[in-house]
Amino acid sequence: EKNNLSFDEALAKAQELGYAEKANPSSDIEGYDAACKLAILASIAFNSRVTLNDVYREGITEVSSDDIGNALDMGYRIKLLAIGIEENGEISVRVHPALVPTSHILASIENTFNAVYIYGNYIDEIMSYGRGAGDRPTASSVVGDIIKIARNFDRKRKGIIYGCGCFEDKKFKSIDDTISKFYILMDVADKPGVLARIADVFGQNSVSINSMIQKQTDRERSARLIFITHEVVNKNLYKSISEISKLDVVDKVLSVIRVEDLS
Amino acid sequence: EKNNLSFDEALAKAQELGYAEKANPSSDIEGYDAACKLAILASIAFNSRVTLNDVYREGITEVSSDDIGNALDMGYRIKLLAIGIEENGEISVRVHPALVPTSHILASIENTFNAVYIYGNYIDEIMSYGRGAGDRPTASSVVGDIIKIARNFDRKRKGIIYGCGCFEDKKFKSIDDTISKFYILMDVADKPGVLARIADVFGQNSVSINSMIQKQTDRERSARLIFITHEVVNKNLYKSISEISKLDVVDKVLSVIRVEDLS
Repeated sequence: EKNNLSFDEALAKAQELGYAEKANPSSDIEGYDAACKLAILASIAFNSRVTLNDVYREGITEVSSDDIGNALDMGYRIKLLAIGIEENGEISVRVHPALVPTSHILASIENTFNAVYIYGNYIDEIMSYGRGAGDRPTASSVVGDIIKIARNFDRKRKGIIYGCGCFEDKKFKSIDDTISKFYILMDVADKPGVLARIADVFGQNSVSINSMIQKQTDRERSARLIFITHEVVNKNLYKSISEISKLDVVDKVLSVIRVEDLS
Repeated sequence: EKNNLSFDEALAKAQELGYAEKANPSSDIEGYDAACKLAILASIAFNSRVTLNDVYREGITEVSSDDIGNALDMGYRIKLLAIGIEENGEISVRVHPALVPTSHILASIENTFNAVYIYGNYIDEIMSYGRGAGDRPTASSVVGDIIKIARNFDRKRKGIIYGCGCFEDKKFKSIDDTISKFYILMDVADKPGVLARIADVFGQNSVSINSMIQKQTDRERSARLIFITHEVVNKNLYKSISEISKLDVVDKVLSVIRVEDLS
C-alpha cells in the first residue's frame, strides 16, 4: 500500500524480514496458515470438528496494487481474513482477501500483526492482537506452549486445552451458497452501450450493483470499471463473471474480491 | 470529538447511554475505575503488591474540546490511559489523559471499548480489546466470572487466578520523578517579548520545547500558545508551569496534558 512494490518484490522483502516463510511462502500468501488456525478456532467455537479440508481458501497472489488503491479511494483496506460463522446450525469457514471499511478496528491491523476478532450476542466485539511472525514473538509463543504443557503434566491434565469439545456434528455451508458483497475490476471497450450489456448480465444473475466508478486507462478506446455489489449468493456472482468475461465488449475481468463490512 | 458537546452535556449523554455510571460518574470520569484495574493488573504483571493508593490519578474533567481539536491538528488523539511500567526494579503506576499518536493502535479504541495493551521484550506488543461498559457486556463478564469460580470450586482451587503472585516488594516511582512529554495550552498577551519570557522560564527548569503553535483568540491583544515539550522530569514541568502562571504577560495556563508516544 505504501511503497507500490510488485507482488514478487513485496514477497522477497517479506521473506527477507522474516514475515513470510522462505522455504514455503505459500503457507502465508496462499492462506494455508490462516486456514489451519481457522480450523482449530472454529472447532473450539462451534463444538464441531472442522478440518483444513473443510475450509474454503483463496490467497492474496491475485490482489494487485491497483486493487489496494481503488479500495482506499472507496474507504476500504484489503486484508486477508479467515472467517468462521455459524448460522442456523450450519458452519461457514473461509479464508480470502476482503475489503474491510477503514473505520473498522480490523483495518488497522498492519505489518506482521494478526488479530482474532470475535463477535457474540452478549460479549459484542472482542479482539486479541499481537505479532503473528518474527523470531522473537514465535520463540515466545513456543516457549509459552512448552510451559503450559509442563504445567498440565504436573497437574495430570492432557493437552493444552481441556479435552476435545467437538461433541456436535454440524453441516458445512458451501462457498457457492455463501452470501457476500463483491468488488469487481474490469477493462472494457469505451463506447456507448457497454455498461448496459454488463448490467444486463448482472441483472439476469440476481447481482445487484451498489456503486460503479469508471476510470480512463492508458490505452485508447478502453475504460476501467469498478463495481461494488450488494449482497449476492456467491454462485450467482461467479456465473455472472463467467458470462461477462465472454462479452466481446469486455477486455478482461481483472479482479473479483469479497467486501466484508463486518457489521 | 465528533459532536463538540460541553463536558456536562457529554457526561449526561454518556450516563443516558449507560457508558458512565449514574450514581457515581466519578468512578469513570475521574479514572478511579481505571486505577482499580491498573492496581490489579500491575500486581500480577510485576509480582509485587500494588494498591489503589499507590496509583497516581488524574481524570478527564479538565480536558476541553479545544484540547481535543488541537491534538487532532497535531496528529494525536486524547485517551484516558492507565500506565504501569517497571524499570530498574521500580514501579510507575499512573492514570491520566494523554495525547496518543493517531497512527497507534490505542488511538483507534473508541466509544465504550477498552483495551489492555502489553509491551514485552519477547512478545513485543499484544492487546486485548472489548466493550468496557453496557448492560450486556457487563452481564457477560459477570456470568463468565461465576462460571470460572464454580469450576474452581469443583477442582478445589481458590479464586479466579491461581493464588497470589506478589512475592516481591518493589519500590514505587513518584509521579514527580516520572519522565513524560507534555502538551501545554495557554493564553498570553499578544506583544513582542512574551514568548522569550516564557521560553526563559522553561529553560531555567530544564524543560525543552519540541514544537510551538500560536493561534489568535477572539479577544484583542491576546494570543493562544500550544507547546509540546520533549521528555522532561515531571516536577521540573510543574515548577515551570507554576512560575509561568505568575508572569504578568500570561493570562492563564489552560491545559497541561501528558503526551505518550508509546514507542
